[in-house]
Amino acid sequence: MASGKRILIVGGVAGGASCAARARRLSEEAEIIMFEKGPFVSFANCGLPFHIGDVIEKEEALMVASPQLFKERFNVDVRVNSEVVSIDRRNSEIAVKDLSSGETYTEKYDALVLSPGAAPVRLPIPGIDLPGVFTLRNIPDTRRIREWVSANGSNRALVVGGGFIGLEMTENLVKRGLTVTIVEAQSHVMPALDPEMVSPVHSELKRCGVSLRLGESVTGFQSMPDGSIRAGLASGGEEQADIVIVCVGVRPETKLAREAGLEIGELGGIRVDSRMRTSDPAIWAVGDAVEVRDFITGGWTLIPLAGPANRQGRVAADVILGRDREFRGVQGTAVCGVFDVTVASTGLSEKTLKRLGLWKQDYEKIYLHPGHHALYYPGARTISLKLIFSKKDGRIIGCQAAGKEGVEKRVDVISMAIQSNRTVFDLEEAELCYAPQYGSAKDPVNMAGMIAANVLRGDSSIAQWDEIASAAPFVLDVRDVKEFGKGHVEQAVNIPLDQLRTRMNEVPGDRDVWAYCLVGQRSYYAMRLLSQNGFNVKSISGGYRTFLAAKGGK
Amino acid sequence: MASGKRILIVGGVAGGASCAARARRLSEEAEIIMFEKGPFVSFANCGLPFHIGDVIEKEEALMVASPQLFKERFNVDVRVNSEVVSIDRRNSEIAVKDLSSGETYTEKYDALVLSPGAAPVRLPIPGIDLPGVFTLRNIPDTRRIREWVSANGSNRALVVGGGFIGLEMTENLVKRGLTVTIVEAQSHVMPALDPEMVSPVHSELKRCGVSLRLGESVTGFQSMPDGSIRAGLASGGEEQADIVIVCVGVRPETKLAREAGLEIGELGGIRVDSRMRTSDPAIWAVGDAVEVRDFITGGWTLIPLAGPANRQGRVAADVILGRDREFRGVQGTAVCGVFDVTVASTGLSEKTLKRLGLWKQDYEKIYLHPGHHALYYPGARTISLKLIFSKKDGRIIGCQAAGKEGVEKRVDVISMAIQSNRTVFDLEEAELCYAPQYGSAKDPVNMAGMIAANVLRGDSSIAQWDEIASAAPFVLDVRDVKEFGKGHVEQAVNIPLDQLRTRMNEVPGDRDVWAYCLVGQRSYYAMRLLSQNGFNVKSISGGYRTFLAAKGGK
Ligand SMILES: Cc1cc2nc3c(=O)[nH]c(=O)nc-3n(C[C@H](O)[C@H](O)[C@H](O)COP(=O)(O)OP(=O)(O)OC[C@H]3O[C@@H](n4cnc5c(N)ncnc54)[C@H](O)[C@@H]3O)c2cc1C
Ligand SMILES: Cc1cc2nc3c(=O)[nH]c(=O)nc-3n(C[C@H](O)[C@H](O)[C@H](O)COP(=O)(O)OP(=O)(O)OC[C@H]3O[C@@H](n4cnc5c(N)ncnc54)[C@H](O)[C@@H]3O)c2cc1C
Ligand SMILES: CC(C)(COP(=O)(O)OP(=O)(O)OC[C@H]1O[C@@H](n2cnc3c(N)ncnc32)[C@H](O)[C@@H]1OP(=O)(O)O)[C@@H](O)C(=O)NCCC(=O)NCCS
Ligand SMILES: CC(C)(COP(=O)(O)OP(=O)(O)OC[C@H]1O[C@@H](n2cnc3c(N)ncnc32)[C@H](O)[C@@H]1OP(=O)(O)O)[C@@H](O)C(=O)NCCC(=O)NCCS
Repeated sequence: MASGKRILIVGGVAGGASCAARARRLSEEAEIIMFEKGPFVSFANCGLPFHIGDVIEKEEALMVASPQLFKERFNVDVRVNSEVVSIDRRNSEIAVKDLSSGETYTEKYDALVLSPGAAPVRLPIPGIDLPGVFTLRNIPDTRRIREWVSANGSNRALVVGGGFIGLEMTENLVKRGLTVTIVEAQSHVMPALDPEMVSPVHSELKRCGVSLRLGESVTGFQSMPDGSIRAGLASGGEEQADIVIVCVGVRPETKLAREAGLEIGELGGIRVDSRMRTSDPAIWAVGDAVEVRDFITGGWTLIPLAGPANRQGRVAADVILGRDREFRGVQGTAVCGVFDVTVASTGLSEKTLKRLGLWKQDYEKIYLHPGHHALYYPGARTISLKLIFSKKDGRIIGCQAAGKEGVEKRVDVISMAIQSNRTVFDLEEAELCYAPQYGSAKDPVNMAGMIAANVLRGDSSIAQWDEIASAAPFVLDVRDVKEFGKGHVEQAVNIPLDQLRTRMNEVPGDRDVWAYCLVGQRSYYAMRLLSQNGFNVKSISGGYRTFLAAKGGK
Repeated sequence: MASGKRILIVGGVAGGASCAARARRLSEEAEIIMFEKGPFVSFANCGLPFHIGDVIEKEEALMVASPQLFKERFNVDVRVNSEVVSIDRRNSEIAVKDLSSGETYTEKYDALVLSPGAAPVRLPIPGIDLPGVFTLRNIPDTRRIREWVSANGSNRALVVGGGFIGLEMTENLVKRGLTVTIVEAQSHVMPALDPEMVSPVHSELKRCGVSLRLGESVTGFQSMPDGSIRAGLASGGEEQADIVIVCVGVRPETKLAREAGLEIGELGGIRVDSRMRTSDPAIWAVGDAVEVRDFITGGWTLIPLAGPANRQGRVAADVILGRDREFRGVQGTAVCGVFDVTVASTGLSEKTLKRLGLWKQDYEKIYLHPGHHALYYPGARTISLKLIFSKKDGRIIGCQAAGKEGVEKRVDVISMAIQSNRTVFDLEEAELCYAPQYGSAKDPVNMAGMIAANVLRGDSSIAQWDEIASAAPFVLDVRDVKEFGKGHVEQAVNIPLDQLRTRMNEVPGDRDVWAYCLVGQRSYYAMRLLSQNGFNVKSISGGYRTFLAAKGGK
């Protein structure tokens, strides 16, 4: 093993700090210096919104490790306020600007690790630099936002962008007592997910008093005489607020890498191999700044999340210190809490499949809405789950779920299944924890597998709401008369499931029949019954709940 | 596909009812009759303790499906109070005793499914039949217990057996205001788990006022003049109570099968193949009554749990109706709530490994005590987790975990990993949901994988508390002086981790050094540091927390 190596690390937070700590554990002899242009290292980026909302009361709580701890515990030389301004690859040397003194000096490296992260995207619109218009990435940003809110007694906030950071900011600003409006250019928040899966988030935001302006974008900001900010909207409208937070995504920090001539990928991230090595064999790069392989598609992707950043930092350290380690790629597992609702996903969304033109006619999707635990035990909450899988071999392609309890558990289990190249048949047979407070004898994960397996085995013919307009089938609602009375799909005819055997004559034998119920279970039973009696019948996956969600997701 | 088959099902709850419902979905033409000797079918056995505790207030809530629903929805003929008393295999006929009328009649079958469940073990001791001494399996038992408690204003309960049903009964009796004592013959409750993992349950029971008599057994019961019951104990002591619940396990119901000459396994369950077929090709058996293959060992096992029963019932229906389906075996995934503590496990325990003589010197175990979510986010609770894996190839053998939040999630993920034949290296690389409210950038599952992988790669030398007496090493406590002051292992010498580089001279170079800290992380760092400086050092897995747990688990 190489020893006494000089390892320089650019960026001292998730990827960089993990790499430094791991490198020291692997080698007591290495010389390790970590450069951070900001005033802090190892802070909890992911906690920043919650500090703004005072959920995390003390700023210190966000400081996971200090330069002193790095010195004492890891014998790592941490240099804060130190920006690495260039890389001289020929001489294996970087130039560092000490931001306190303004002076620049150089340091030699045997191995260089870039973990500079990503920068919030700055909208190229007038007024983006006005006081009161913020982005959020680090502790100084957080301080500025907190101070602005306190100093100006802000009441109204405008959050531009409904991705997960925008939503966390929204929740936390509401917790601080502000009234929040979200402007989102797409037709729904959490644009990475499929619209119908986001519907519970829309409802929850409304329930908590948040205004949504969807399919709308901001064209510019103006300072008003009363100190507030006016945002002009593409539709011609406007929004007035005391503070604006712009959360429209992040862009890999690649300036250093670009200028040093390292290969940059099509998506704008630093290109690395599975060992996190850049196009220069003495330089590694990790975290938000890099493009990595999507585990499912094999293609390049940008996944700016902390888990991958930490694991990549660790892999880079291993490789630098002579281990044969590879990063296995990412599959996009993520979770977001929005007030009482949790949304989580792993693998590909249907949107992504369509965008990339993958699996085309070869994927199938199913929906279900089981309880998070046994329904007979008090407090069961509905989980709405969408599973996308290959029609050819049942391989799981993606899963999205939303609800109030037990959501991320199911997504984590399915994430492990995807990692293991499992199929829906494996979910069907999964043996998961069951006691009434925790799950069901047939867990939602099993149910998802069973429903999908039935489709693949040809035992279940399903239809989707998004095809109903073009198919124009006979629509059969098999719920109870009372349920039907409370609301139903316009053209539907009601025959409750339990009367279907005796009233089959009311179902047309010469038309396509699409059955639905509340969630898709009774209509599946109806489909089995009718199909064995010669009807041409499909069950609409996810039932009325998915119908309503598809409306609410837009 | 076979159609118009006559399918008779013995037992109308988890396995039987699932089989009946699935069979109907697969075949509208089959004739399906389900016989149940009790007055109810499809009830939630697993909810019974919670009804006794009034957590589930209404008995109706436990009735998942009624005979009427079976008739109307599934066209299944349900016969309650109907005991199947014998099987005439030659004539493919069963004899049924109508318990209301006392009359017996016969029914022919094409396929017969046995799902008679298991019966609570009755201790062969005097007084076991006394009024006030109960077991719990079904609705009538539940009613009897509820009535006894109400009618006699019971204050003190004795629960015999600290398995999961005993613990659920304990919790629910406490919720009803009773004072409970548990008598358990083994040295710890939840005897299926390893003692050190059960320690949090012992603490929780004590916190909730439950008395524990461990390593103690009941020799008989006596009715006292005041209506109470006196239990004699093997140690010579006694316990006085107003009600006794005996929960000492279950035994497969095999009378019918035995008398019909079907093969019975060594463990006393009905022998079936992977298609749930008994030694008679026209007879299937499922649920608590059967022996199935352990997915990990390949050996036979009895797993009386609802998930497997339901899935086996479904597989049996599939096979009967001509599908090629197999049951994949069980791995013993289970969860139990004890007041605020959750304990869950999957795969084999160390106890079981030792009992079966499996993996002998070839397994390794590690302990960790991470937070259930990011520590910087308020409300993180500790999960204590034990991972057992193969030293040869890293295959995951078993996992046990205990804590107040997020326990069953991690066990479910690891359960899916076991099902997928994954290794600790796959846990290390798992991509799980992370936001501060839900987990950590390095999730407990990742941490378990990392710790284990370090051991397998030779980067981490670990020791276990249960070996310390024989090894007699130099014991180094690397926690802070303050932590050390609050309690430490007797022979330990304290050098805080962050001073270790400068105080290395205080560590003996000629002895085995075993380092520990609170959970095993700092001692791992110490081990890395010292081993690279030539010391002969190991880190004690799980640290002081596991030390205390090992004491408390006994
Ligand atoms: C508000 C917020 C909430 C988040 N919530 C979640 C969440 O819930 N879950 C999740 O998985 N992820 C979340 N993330 C994303 C997560 O924080 C990032 O994916 C992760 O921090 C990326 O690690 P990194 O090392 O690549 O970059 P960073 O952690 O951003 O570290 C990069 C560091 O490099 C420094 N740097 C850049 N250039 C230079 C230079 N030239 N010289 C010296 N230093 C330099 C920067 O100042 C920065 O501190 C969140 C991010 C934010 C901002
Ligand atoms: C109190 C309690 C709590 C539990 N909690 C959990 C839990 O939290 N999680 C979990 O996974 N499992 C739990 N279980 C176990 C779970 O209920 C069983 O594993 C499951 O019900 C087994 O299904 P089965 O079909 O084999 O047997 P059962 O569901 O018991 O059904 C068997 C039925 O067959 C009937 N029968 C027997 N012989 C005959 C005959 N000759 N003729 C006609 N009928 C007959 C019986 O009356 C019985 O109703 C619990 C069990 C109990 C009793
Ligand atoms: C603080 C920080 C430097 C710690 O890095 P780290 O030491 O690699 O990570 P952790 O503290 O999580 O500890 C993991 C190490 O301890 C080991 N470990 C943890 N618990 C252990 C236990 N009980 N027994 C033995 N080893 C243990 C792990 O195996 C791992 O060591 P390895 O990498 O050599 O295998 C880094 O995580 C950081 O900067 N975090 C804040 C920034 C951030 O991540 N932001 C995004 C999320 S908000
Ligand atoms: C009530 C009982 C008869 C139901 O049996 P069941 O119909 O097989 O099971 P479920 O109600 O869970 O429904 C599962 C079926 O609906 C289907 N389904 C469920 N949700 C669906 C949805 N949204 N869309 C399509 N199909 C769906 C499943 O695929 C499955 O059908 P399949 O087996 O043909 O694939 C049986 O579970 C029972 O008796 N339970 C009580 C006893 C018991 O289990 N006790 C132990 C635990 S307390």
